[in-house]
Amino acid sequence: MIRFDLNPRLEGDSLHVTDLPLCAVRLMKDANYPWVLLVPRHSDLIEIIDLSEEDRLQLMREIARVSEALRAITTCEKLNVGALGNMVSQLHLHIIARFHEDPAWPGPVWGAVPAKPYEPGVAEDLINRLRAELDTGQNTGPEA
Amino acid sequence: MIRFDLNPRLEGDSLHVTDLPLCAVRLMKDANYPWVLLVPRHSDLIEIIDLSEEDRLQLMREIARVSEALRAITTCEKLNVGALGNMVSQLHLHIIARFHEDPAWPGPVWGAVPAKPYEPGVAEDLINRLRAELDTGQNTGPEA
Repeated sequence: MIRFDLNPRLEGDSLHVTDLPLCAVRLMKDANYPWVLLVPRHSDLIEIIDLSEEDRLQLMREIARVSEALRAITTCEKLNVGALGNMVSQLHLHIIARFHEDPAWPGPVWGAVPAKPYEPGVAEDLINRLRAELDTGQNTGPEA
Repeated sequence: MIRFDLNPRLEGDSLHVTDLPLCAVRLMKDANYPWVLLVPRHSDLIEIIDLSEEDRLQLMREIARVSEALRAITTCEKLNVGALGNMVSQLHLHIIARFHEDPAWPGPVWGAVPAKPYEPGVAEDLINRLRAELDTGQNTGPEA
């Protein structure tokens, strides 16, 4: 795990998965949806457009890579990708696997229902599967 | 306006602004928030990862360009960027200028309050300002 200054609320609400060249990858502690955060390791940025041109493109590569991994693992019906930051300003991206029977469908997940704790072992299993998907194909991106 | 097969609901809910190399740019008919859609002119795609690698990077360039324009025009307090597609599957990106006093703050805008019609001339003025911002700097992106 590469150390950087992660907002305490983001840290408390999520678990470390792995590090990509630009972003920390984290799993939200919410069993309602397989929900991943991408957090660029630039603690002082707020908007996507605060990133350099090259980092923006790398962010898109990492969004795509995590989206592919999440869809492969969950066989979800839809992906939701968003950068909101209305509650926690530190720049972070949400990538969420959505299902027609999930508790917020077809609305957005943010603020829909309270977070539901994972049963023991389930988050760890998902994290291990994400790591396995993301660590193959590690050689993408200019910094890898 | 470049012709392509735009979903009827997206078309009905929004107004044409301009065309960028990859995406149609449209303004949502909702005076609650300055709210722009980016619609890649590939009518059959659903997810960002359905785009080619090159088009994904071009999408990020256009997200950044529209975000800069929207922030310059509105002096908004936050940008929200999202690709959800739970209601309308045709791939489209939302870029929304948020204010602490807007009717959904700090929640997401989707489904928060009913759309509010623009007063006469206001949407047209915003569209003209967006065009002026986006048409300067037209020479970005590999296809420009």
